Amino acid sequence: MLKNLIENTASPWTMGDGTDSDVVLCTRIRLARNFAQYPFPLKQTETSGQAVLADLSAFCKDRNDLHFYDLHDVSPLEKRALVEKHYISPEHSKDDNHYRGLAVNDTGSVSIMINEEDHLRIQCFAPGLDLDDLWQNVNALDDDIESYFDYAFDERLGYLTCCPSNLGNGMRASVMMHLPGLTLTKRLGLLDQLSNFGMTVRGLFGEGSQSVGDLYQISNQSAIGQNEKDILTNLKSVTQQIIKEERNARNFLKEQNGLRLSDRIWRAYGTLSNARYMSSREALELISLVRLGYHLGYFTQLESAQVDQLYLMAQPGYLQVLYGHDMDEAARDVYRAEKLRATIG
Amino acid sequence: MLKNLIENTASPWTMGDGTDSDVVLCTRIRLARNFAQYPFPLKQTETSGQAVLADLSAFCKDRNDLHFYDLHDVSPLEKRALVEKHYISPEHSKDDNHYRGLAVNDTGSVSIMINEEDHLRIQCFAPGLDLDDLWQNVNALDDDIESYFDYAFDERLGYLTCCPSNLGNGMRASVMMHLPGLTLTKRLGLLDQLSNFGMTVRGLFGEGSQSVGDLYQISNQSAIGQNEKDILTNLKSVTQQIIKEERNARNFLKEQNGLRLSDRIWRAYGTLSNARYMSSREALELISLVRLGYHLGYFTQLESAQVDQLYLMAQPGYLQVLYGHDMDEAARDVYRAEKLRATIG
Repeated sequence: MLKNLIENTASPWTMGDGTDSDVVLCTRIRLARNFAQYPFPLKQTETSGQAVLADLSAFCKDRNDLHFYDLHDVSPLEKRALVEKHYISPEHSKDDNHYRGLAVNDTGSVSIMINEEDHLRIQCFAPGLDLDDLWQNVNALDDDIESYFDYAFDERLGYLTCCPSNLGNGMRASVMMHLPGLTLTKRLGLLDQLSNFGMTVRGLFGEGSQSVGDLYQISNQSAIGQNEKDILTNLKSVTQQIIKEERNARNFLKEQNGLRLSDRIWRAYGTLSNARYMSSREALELISLVRLGYHLGYFTQLESAQVDQLYLMAQPGYLQVLYGHDMDEAARDVYRAEKLRATIG
Repeated sequence: MLKNLIENTASPWTMGDGTDSDVVLCTRIRLARNFAQYPFPLKQTETSGQAVLADLSAFCKDRNDLHFYDLHDVSPLEKRALVEKHYISPEHSKDDNHYRGLAVNDTGSVSIMINEEDHLRIQCFAPGLDLDDLWQNVNALDDDIESYFDYAFDERLGYLTCCPSNLGNGMRASVMMHLPGLTLTKRLGLLDQLSNFGMTVRGLFGEGSQSVGDLYQISNQSAIGQNEKDILTNLKSVTQQIIKEERNARNFLKEQNGLRLSDRIWRAYGTLSNARYMSSREALELISLVRLGYHLGYFTQLESAQVDQLYLMAQPGYLQVLYGHDMDEAARDVYRAEKLRATIG
């Protein structure tokens, strides 16, 4: 089942639909939780690390809709693809002496990282902008886990976490946005103001990652001293403001020089659907333009999900999983071009 | 009939077939001739200029397969398209006080410029490399004209012409070659040696024109002191040598880095078939790659003539003739992209 989740052409952030999907690829809420009875992962022994895994494995069996995996049984390549699909963090894909586990549901809309920085990182995903439903889902799952286990919790501080930035409600909500309009109109500077609203901006793969393909993750900075609803309301309002600015930028580009814009977009499409050799970076740049074009009404022969799946084809790990073997960079560049053509053609 | 010759998608150099058409687009032989009884064009009066036109007009009527046109009745735009199709020289398209005329046959394989630098520039064209047949044709036509009129001829110098470089047999034979292989392997330097063989290299539009789209015209340098057959034998042998070198270069590129080559070619195809805006220069560069690809066996859905017609779509004059109006550069770039897509799509 994990094999299927890794190999299929879908991922939580490339479903292609949902509310405001012209600008928002996906929404994610994750809760950081630790068990009261075990030392935190940083101080974990083999016994306590394995105990956490065993507890979660038992919980998954009980729930019946979650599948448990010990990541020591998953190949480095498959872990890389899991990162690219956003089921696990880059940190969680490391082959170190942590006792790393993963629980996922069939559709991939729920993923729990076990023994990452905290005992549990409970994540729920939804396509498009969908913070309210997502909050219901992750909250219900959290309540269910809490009905089985005692969380490390302090009356004054809230949920206890490894990193102080997660203390409190332990929640990070993030919205993956596609902002080619702001990029092309050189107005990305407005993202710098988000810190004034308690928000932070990250690249495609979270903390420390660069922005590629005009993709930006907007999320709350801190989890302490605010309740979840306030954070979500704030994030929703900030996101909607950015959506508005992005749409304005797209309209501006269309009106000011629609021809140049359509030329850039069609050339990107022509290159993606014909090249025989393509780096990940170039692919992401071209996909961004094609995605923009799709949401401007071009490429009516394509489906929204087909366009977003292109992002997966740009990823080195996922490509190698599809291929079934490790590949060097040159071989990947050829195979990537082939897969991009097949997806878009 | 001239309108049709100007507007149709064919031209003597873009027929797409013929011997060695993977490297040779077209062969041309032209003879420079002057009438004994009139002053040469440089010294022409209205009376003598009109007399030459009248003589040729009468000759065409008599032959029945040649149509005579006074170029004063042809619009500047149409003359530009005639230049681009190679029926007339850039010089002959000028709106000056020469009494310029043109005689062409139905298929466009014969074109006589009247009162260009000489009274007559008799040209015959053939697709691919075809010097022998072409010589028969142009020689027969020349004999026929000479049976009507007295040419300016000197026993010692041969046919008398305005420019000494044409003195003698007045013949220039030229082969239009497509040399992307030599360009990509940086071996064009071998063309520099052609002067040692009495040959000269020019761009798409003859004397003084730059090479564009990897197109080169190879022709004999001088017409004096050699008979036509020797010049043609020499040109044929030089051309065949270049054809061999060009094919070697293409094979080398295929074998050394076929993937990079096919990537470049397919990207060119993708851009040509999708761009919404394209300069003439860019179009010619891309067309060169697509033509190379076609003759390497790609694009089996295309016809050889279809590929070569792309060259016409890159030309500003022909485009405006198709459009039916003058267009500024930006409008041409849009229309060019549209026509290229329609031709290749």
